[in-house]
Amino acid sequence: MALIVQKYGGTSVGSPDRIKEVAKRVKRWRERGDDIVVVVSAMSGETNRLVGLINDLNTNGSSREKDVVLSTGEQVTMGLLSLALESIDCPAKSYTGRQAGIITNSAHSKARIESIDEAPIRKDLSEGKVIIVAGFQGVDGEGNITTLGRGGSDTTAVALAVALKADECQIYTDVDGVYTTDPRVVADATHIPKLALEEMLEMASQGSKVLQIRAVEFAYKYDMPIRVLSSFDDGDNGKSTLVTREEDIMEQVMVRGVAFNRDEAQLTIKGVPDTPGVAFEILGPISDANIEVDMILQNIGTDGTTDFTFTINRADYSEAMSILKATGKTLGASECKGDDRIAKVSIVGAGMRSHAGVATEMFKALSKEGINLRMISTSEIKISVVVDEKYLELAVRTLHEAFGLGSKAV
Amino acid sequence: MALIVQKYGGTSVGSPDRIKEVAKRVKRWRERGDDIVVVVSAMSGETNRLVGLINDLNTNGSSREKDVVLSTGEQVTMGLLSLALESIDCPAKSYTGRQAGIITNSAHSKARIESIDEAPIRKDLSEGKVIIVAGFQGVDGEGNITTLGRGGSDTTAVALAVALKADECQIYTDVDGVYTTDPRVVADATHIPKLALEEMLEMASQGSKVLQIRAVEFAYKYDMPIRVLSSFDDGDNGKSTLVTREEDIMEQVMVRGVAFNRDEAQLTIKGVPDTPGVAFEILGPISDANIEVDMILQNIGTDGTTDFTFTINRADYSEAMSILKATGKTLGASECKGDDRIAKVSIVGAGMRSHAGVATEMFKALSKEGINLRMISTSEIKISVVVDEKYLELAVRTLHEAFGLGSKAV
Repeated sequence: MALIVQKYGGTSVGSPDRIKEVAKRVKRWRERGDDIVVVVSAMSGETNRLVGLINDLNTNGSSREKDVVLSTGEQVTMGLLSLALESIDCPAKSYTGRQAGIITNSAHSKARIESIDEAPIRKDLSEGKVIIVAGFQGVDGEGNITTLGRGGSDTTAVALAVALKADECQIYTDVDGVYTTDPRVVADATHIPKLALEEMLEMASQGSKVLQIRAVEFAYKYDMPIRVLSSFDDGDNGKSTLVTREEDIMEQVMVRGVAFNRDEAQLTIKGVPDTPGVAFEILGPISDANIEVDMILQNIGTDGTTDFTFTINRADYSEAMSILKATGKTLGASECKGDDRIAKVSIVGAGMRSHAGVATEMFKALSKEGINLRMISTSEIKISVVVDEKYLELAVRTLHEAFGLGSKAV
Repeated sequence: MALIVQKYGGTSVGSPDRIKEVAKRVKRWRERGDDIVVVVSAMSGETNRLVGLINDLNTNGSSREKDVVLSTGEQVTMGLLSLALESIDCPAKSYTGRQAGIITNSAHSKARIESIDEAPIRKDLSEGKVIIVAGFQGVDGEGNITTLGRGGSDTTAVALAVALKADECQIYTDVDGVYTTDPRVVADATHIPKLALEEMLEMASQGSKVLQIRAVEFAYKYDMPIRVLSSFDDGDNGKSTLVTREEDIMEQVMVRGVAFNRDEAQLTIKGVPDTPGVAFEILGPISDANIEVDMILQNIGTDGTTDFTFTINRADYSEAMSILKATGKTLGASECKGDDRIAKVSIVGAGMRSHAGVATEMFKALSKEGINLRMISTSEIKISVVVDEKYLELAVRTLHEAFGLGSKAV
């Protein structure tokens, strides 16, 4: 008998009819004899409705109270799914974040899970009940309701799976797994039945939207296998992607997939003194403004000055630029410039560890198409390049073909 | 400095704009220097929306899970009102039933409050915050979410007022107080500025819809003054009705008002043995079916048998009749009959205690209009009669005039 944690996203529980379908699926799993814990999101559209009510107030109120409002969406779903299960004679019991003992820090709207008290859930499981837990929410040490940020339900699911030592964490969504790249960009993209958590981590952080990056980090840290499935498949025998420990994957490929992110912007500050601490002086004010920096590149000049380039989310571009200009004045920089029409393309694969020459092959393929590389960054299992946004699709298709990822590849 | 508990109903918080109006009103009260605790209902329409989602499931699921869903309505309002207050620089903090320490029994959908832990609210009040509490909800001893039944927010408000030893519990609604009778039936009905809790209790249980009967019972038991006000009045100097201890009301009138209830049905069983315990044999099965019995009347016959008549809510008529017929067979009754087109009219007034002849005057006035009385029931401060439903309005108007309750009365 296995213990399975399942998570259903907003479109999977988007209407009472969809909820009934989920209930039938959960019951089928239960009847195989497994213990089932289900994590639910708010019904699709519900979180936006609640955000709309808050926005109608034109409020500058606290995020504590926003979390109070937003956390109701998942509570509605958990009650409805429990009712749907009871209606088909499948005993169920719902848990709010608080009832599930999900304790977070007090960072409202982006709280992090600190601990889970699994005892009450274990007791109800032992009585044969299916457990339904509200995703996206917890309480801090003082009992204030917190939320984990958009997509936080994935994180709830993985955290519960870890706390309960589940055999697998299943993420039901509207696609049937992870693909070698986005099929909307490359029609020939192929389904990946199995990949390593570390690869998924790079795929997720490089812009693949199937799983929340925080959830994958959690799973990676605690070795929790995640399976991505579609809740729109008829049966339970459809395709899926198992994201698991590297050593559980027989075949290591050099390149598992091509990830990309078009929401990037690049900033450069030129002619700053090449002294220790200058990186901190440049990036400190940026991160103080809560702007996340992605890639960083520093060119050492010859005249005792240096050029410094970094990328950020495109939405933060104008704010970051004015901060950088202020820093530039203080440091006596010769120039501050930027570009918000860039994109990042990455190839990911655990096999890179043992294969040399992957980068060379990547650069050769891109240069053959005349695509100029503006920045390069590498890790053990991925290589990212920044290109002009207009080349994004061409770059993705080129790399997808160059590494033989398509279904028509030999 | 006073401590005031205010309760705002669904129409008072029916939209973000209405919530902003409530926030302004709460702030005005706060600025007078009083401590303010606010209890909120779900936005009007919200509870029906949630009930609709549940009904769409065609579920026979547990009331535990229904409470999980229904309790979210008030949680949304409490968060929105707190945000609206913070936006106008009035520090506020919201409390779910659980956070407010409202412990109930486990009777889901009609739970009764057992205790309230007022310590956390007191602490936040002492820091100058306005406290917003979700009405209608609590948790049982095991932390399961419970609801108090429709209109339960009034009960939450009074219970909190009692626990906090508030100076007054203000119920904001869409009318500006209690009237001598329903102005839709008697245009001449007059506003009552002050009446006794015991009178309100009889008015409420006799069908006056302004306050929830359970809330008034609670206030009566603990001597908590309730003020009924309209949240649609522009300022705070509009009309209101103070419902308070009898000894705080200088002028005792003989008849305070005329209450009525048209949702009544009458059942009669004839020719049953006139033995001890027969009443229990007749009414036991009725109350086992959760049908509430209102008036009861027993005529002793001459031949060792008796006739037994009682009234119930009209919605339960057919179920009660089939139960009664089964009982009739067992007891060898000569006849079971009923009428679901009856209504109850009552006059209420604490002054009745010291005035004789009120009943006579009532019966005289009704007989002058040719209205036949089918049942009569009296308490210390009220007299109720059952009449054919078609006479209801006539009876109410007749009594309203006979006891000089209209604004044109001398």
